[in-house]
Amino acid sequence: MIREAAERIRPLARRTPVMTSRSLDERAGASIFLKCENFQRGGAFKIRGAANLILSLTPDELKRGIVAFSSGNHAQGVALAAKYVGAAATIVMPEDAPKSKMDPTRALGARIVTYNRLREDREKLAAAVLAETGGVLVPPYDHPMIMAGQGTVALELLEEVPDLDALLICVGGGGMASGCSTIALDLRPGIRNFGVEPELGNDVWLSFQKGERVTIPPPETIADGLRTPSPGKLTFPIMRRNLESILLVSEDEIRAAVLFLMERVKIVVEPSGAVGVAAALFGKIPNGLGRVGVIISGGNLDRSLLKSI
Amino acid sequence: MIREAAERIRPLARRTPVMTSRSLDERAGASIFLKCENFQRGGAFKIRGAANLILSLTPDELKRGIVAFSSGNHAQGVALAAKYVGAAATIVMPEDAPKSKMDPTRALGARIVTYNRLREDREKLAAAVLAETGGVLVPPYDHPMIMAGQGTVALELLEEVPDLDALLICVGGGGMASGCSTIALDLRPGIRNFGVEPELGNDVWLSFQKGERVTIPPPETIADGLRTPSPGKLTFPIMRRNLESILLVSEDEIRAAVLFLMERVKIVVEPSGAVGVAAALFGKIPNGLGRVGVIISGGNLDRSLLKSI
Repeated sequence: MIREAAERIRPLARRTPVMTSRSLDERAGASIFLKCENFQRGGAFKIRGAANLILSLTPDELKRGIVAFSSGNHAQGVALAAKYVGAAATIVMPEDAPKSKMDPTRALGARIVTYNRLREDREKLAAAVLAETGGVLVPPYDHPMIMAGQGTVALELLEEVPDLDALLICVGGGGMASGCSTIALDLRPGIRNFGVEPELGNDVWLSFQKGERVTIPPPETIADGLRTPSPGKLTFPIMRRNLESILLVSEDEIRAAVLFLMERVKIVVEPSGAVGVAAALFGKIPNGLGRVGVIISGGNLDRSLLKSI
Repeated sequence: MIREAAERIRPLARRTPVMTSRSLDERAGASIFLKCENFQRGGAFKIRGAANLILSLTPDELKRGIVAFSSGNHAQGVALAAKYVGAAATIVMPEDAPKSKMDPTRALGARIVTYNRLREDREKLAAAVLAETGGVLVPPYDHPMIMAGQGTVALELLEEVPDLDALLICVGGGGMASGCSTIALDLRPGIRNFGVEPELGNDVWLSFQKGERVTIPPPETIADGLRTPSPGKLTFPIMRRNLESILLVSEDEIRAAVLFLMERVKIVVEPSGAVGVAAALFGKIPNGLGRVGVIISGGNLDRSLLKSI
């Protein structure tokens, strides 16, 4: 499915570059290969999953329109793919979503419905919107076509750098972590896959400890793309099977990684996208890893957020 | 000489990527190819010229040590190349040079001598340091080996994108503009070369109008790498022959270009490196150019400067 996804999404998703940085290698004590999805269309990897699902819908389904709920980057991915196929899109977004994620979504012609992240349940709201519009739901992670689409990130990375010892994947709901770890193990059996989460949004780490899906209160981490309160039903068993462990990084480590990537690597990465680099910079990865792939999930960084960092 | 330089500097300079951006193309009304020297070692193209000259010095010359004067990026280039060949380096820098340029130079083991940019003459100071140390001067632009080294930027760009209609080159002293325009015309006769300068640092524009080298008071432009008060003796005749004209951009346009590159293209570019993009974004290039190469000269952007932008 991941290889099929790579073909399907070609008209919409870019093949993003893999970057290296001498200063990053020196600080991390390993050769780091950054898969730069901050350069992806819409500024994040999300277009891959969204395009994979939306481009496989029937004309009848497309006519009904598309509904999605998202803290931001998935919204842009869905809006881009919906525009490409000429389908109407309604996006349910938290009212405090970064402007850098809300504005471009609206500019792509999507209708935005906002909700309060702390008081309202976005899935219920999405269900109401679905009932109202009769549209097709494009979930952010818990769907095989979404997971397969996100897996193309690691497919491209390993095509370009086949001899990786490990892969660091940021974990929100687990769509990218499940897709990427699956194709990584297929292409390179024995590769060590690690998920990376903020300490403040450690739902997957807790779920790994407990051996079942744990739901935490809405996380207040600066990594707004990783505020999912629990792993997905479908993504969790795949992550358990494929990920060696979940690495945790603090808010300060995430901030430092964002600044390091700007000042030394010269790329703009949003906090959610920087957790893998934070893990590499602050000694969270096992010793002795020689060549490590790190997925930079996105680069939609608000001016006000950057200023605060 | 430029082709020889490409061979000579290979152990020290990276081959930097060429990036494209849909949003940039849309705004500029042309296909823009960014040659990203912000990803170069030391954060700017300057390593190319410095390495070309320093790697061609004799062992005796290297023993005498190296002296350079620079507002910042050339300093890092010289310090890197000097460290590589094991030569002592003394760099004369303005005391208000950005921290992001001074600190890494010092970290590379170079001795830094500072001066007041408005009151003191850096060339006189460098002459004094040369007399004191007996070292070899590595000038920032006005030397055939420096110009040849900087020309490798356009050599690489045109190897990767051979069918460019035009090239936008930022102009400080003119080292990169002369080297790049020379190889561009050799590889693609008929290519239209344009220099780009800040309005506040328009010494080359004025020199083009007058037909001779004009010296202006120390420019106060935000583009600190382009504060040279006059074109070089050697670079000026080459620029006159090779550049169709000098395009001028305002301080606000430079700031807007820096932000556009961060927020839309997701790369960190210093003001001096953003003038070409500013020209493309704000309609300073002739109509009808289809494919335009733009050289991003560097990415050493101070936190405080970024905050002010």
